[in-house]
Amino acid sequence: MSRVVLLSDFGTIDGYAAAMAGVVATEAPAAIVEHATHDIPAGDVLAAALALSRYAGLYPPGTVHVAVVDPGVGTERRALAATVDGRHFVCPDNGTLTLVLRAAAQVSLVDASRIGRGQQEAAPTFHGRDIFAPAAAHLARGGPLEILGPSVVDPVLLDIAQPERDGGEIRGEVVHVDRFGNLITNIDAGSIRELAADGGDVGIRVGDVDAGPLRRTYADVPTGRVVALVGSLDLLEVSVRDGDGARSLGAGRGSRVTVTAA
Amino acid sequence: MSRVVLLSDFGTIDGYAAAMAGVVATEAPAAIVEHATHDIPAGDVLAAALALSRYAGLYPPGTVHVAVVDPGVGTERRALAATVDGRHFVCPDNGTLTLVLRAAAQVSLVDASRIGRGQQEAAPTFHGRDIFAPAAAHLARGGPLEILGPSVVDPVLLDIAQPERDGGEIRGEVVHVDRFGNLITNIDAGSIRELAADGGDVGIRVGDVDAGPLRRTYADVPTGRVVALVGSLDLLEVSVRDGDGARSLGAGRGSRVTVTAA
Amino acid sequence: MSRVVLLSDFGTIDGYAAAMAGVVATEAPAAIVEHATHDIPAGDVLAAALALSRYAGLYPPGTVHVAVVDPGVGTERRALAATVDGRHFVCPDNGTLTLVLRAAAQVSLVDASRIGRGQQEAAPTFHGRDIFAPAAAHLARGGPLEILGPSVVDPVLLDIAQPERDGGEIRGEVVHVDRFGNLITNIDAGSIRELAADGGDVGIRVGDVDAGPLRRTYADVPTGRVVALVGSLDLLEVSVRDGDGARSLGAGRGSRVTVTAA
Repeated sequence: MSRVVLLSDFGTIDGYAAAMAGVVATEAPAAIVEHATHDIPAGDVLAAALALSRYAGLYPPGTVHVAVVDPGVGTERRALAATVDGRHFVCPDNGTLTLVLRAAAQVSLVDASRIGRGQQEAAPTFHGRDIFAPAAAHLARGGPLEILGPSVVDPVLLDIAQPERDGGEIRGEVVHVDRFGNLITNIDAGSIRELAADGGDVGIRVGDVDAGPLRRTYADVPTGRVVALVGSLDLLEVSVRDGDGARSLGAGRGSRVTVTAA
Repeated sequence: MSRVVLLSDFGTIDGYAAAMAGVVATEAPAAIVEHATHDIPAGDVLAAALALSRYAGLYPPGTVHVAVVDPGVGTERRALAATVDGRHFVCPDNGTLTLVLRAAAQVSLVDASRIGRGQQEAAPTFHGRDIFAPAAAHLARGGPLEILGPSVVDPVLLDIAQPERDGGEIRGEVVHVDRFGNLITNIDAGSIRELAADGGDVGIRVGDVDAGPLRRTYADVPTGRVVALVGSLDLLEVSVRDGDGARSLGAGRGSRVTVTAA
Repeated sequence: MSRVVLLSDFGTIDGYAAAMAGVVATEAPAAIVEHATHDIPAGDVLAAALALSRYAGLYPPGTVHVAVVDPGVGTERRALAATVDGRHFVCPDNGTLTLVLRAAAQVSLVDASRIGRGQQEAAPTFHGRDIFAPAAAHLARGGPLEILGPSVVDPVLLDIAQPERDGGEIRGEVVHVDRFGNLITNIDAGSIRELAADGGDVGIRVGDVDAGPLRRTYADVPTGRVVALVGSLDLLEVSVRDGDGARSLGAGRGSRVTVTAA
């Protein structure tokens, strides 16, 4: 039994997501289709890349991950198929795999743009159904990656901001606001540990707002108060306990975050 | 392994959709339940019919499609079960199957209103759980359609507007606005090809707004501009590239669309 | 084939829900993961308890229900694993099981707080991934409940309002508003039958608004009119036909509902 896991910005309401699932069901009858999400904001490739990086590696080897957030559908952008550390991926070549590739040990990438459903030409507006789903079904059936197309060595990567260390300070930014209003930054736990090793505690600020020291969990502060902690992605997150951090702090993607040695 | 694919306007939040899935899981233990969507606007049978027509035929023969958008629950409206070109359908007799039946070669239809869960009477407010899910489970187990009830020859059909050809012009309308704000019309690609065969290019208008000639894909116009193309359903669609066509053009379901030979 | 059915308030957009599904897929490869809902309002344990009670018992024995609405994550609140009438449950010890336990014949409960994924410590902000999903996978593999942790005899229960009978009147309240705006009360069909047995018909009021006698289904009143009926949970519900009862009546969770013998 192989699993094909779908992500898109299609919503479910129009039946586009189910159309992809139906093609997989027809072309890989033994595959189980799972829906990770179809609620990615329209065209938001960074949100897709972040969501994918949260769950892709938790699935077993052999899983086929399909991720279609595709504002460039119908242009010359390539369609990628990849095997990364034993899991398969199909998606437009637009940066969706940036975080998956950054964490990868072993990668094979091909240009699957010529794949289609049977004899029909792919609809120039719906490659999810006509290219990505058939490519995923091929991989779910155990088909070899290589026959999907020629090798790719230069996938498009998102230019995700990297934090900077400057003496006793790390300067980063918010890269994502999740459903709960948690501000997820680009500052990883390791760099905070390094900073703290130099001189004990750290202080965290979002813009000009004091977010206190680094806590362990939400419950370390009273309800309604700002709390900074290392989240489940091993990145610094700033939240308001039982509230909405983004709204309370007036912060969002791109907001400046600093960690200072005490 | 058979698949039972659910569509409704229940949302997921209250557990009604999962209740249908649970009944199927209990009564057809080998079936795989998939959720196409539960986000159809409340009571919008036309939206259900359109979504269903986008994915139903892409699933393999033997699939059971359940579609419960049922403002008439508890009235005398019939519960339908059908086999259409090898795939099964259960839904209220309210027009949900209009587009599926229009494209069908071989149809068997029965009135499944008497089906229930075990000895219990169906709750008059939740036929999804008490009639449609058990009927779907029966079909997923390979049970014959005929024993679900007497034959039906006059299913309710939606009166979906048909475009009119008048000399060098096709007059149609918007039948659906999808999640991205794309305006999906009732004008099919074939009738445009026929018109164009008479005299070359065509020009498209939505109300009084010029939507230009027929393009191949979104990327044929700059970001923010109106683009008319044949979408993945083989119907004329009008969009704004990387934008929301419905909002930009002030158009919606019922808006007038004309195609004129150049 | 065992089924693992997930409920949470995570939404799907951030990939948290898929992360739980991925862990289950890896640790219980033969299990089918189903998503009941991830749209529970953030932190609303009562809404989770109600939704769960609508579908949990409709799934076959052996199903593993995972329900993670967990405002107390990272505090000392326990993680529960339970077997209730042949079905399994894992969730925070915060009242999520209140209605399931109220209807149960046979219950075994343990404290699974020490369960984790392999050698890693559970992230103090994401027990869904690191405790509940692995515990669910263990049960889906047929593992014994007892080895997940010590027995629990005092699970946290929600203090859900109970209706009061006072002579010829039952006084209850709205406990939930569903997606359609239906007002679901805490007054069960049995107590209304008992009241009616005393003297015939009953009259229903929401606050000061007359909701008429008890009807059988929505179609017993014209479109746009208030209708009171026994819903699919066997509880009194007040709706507006083809409308939104909560909005029309200005009512919500906690609104007073009375049933009076005529």
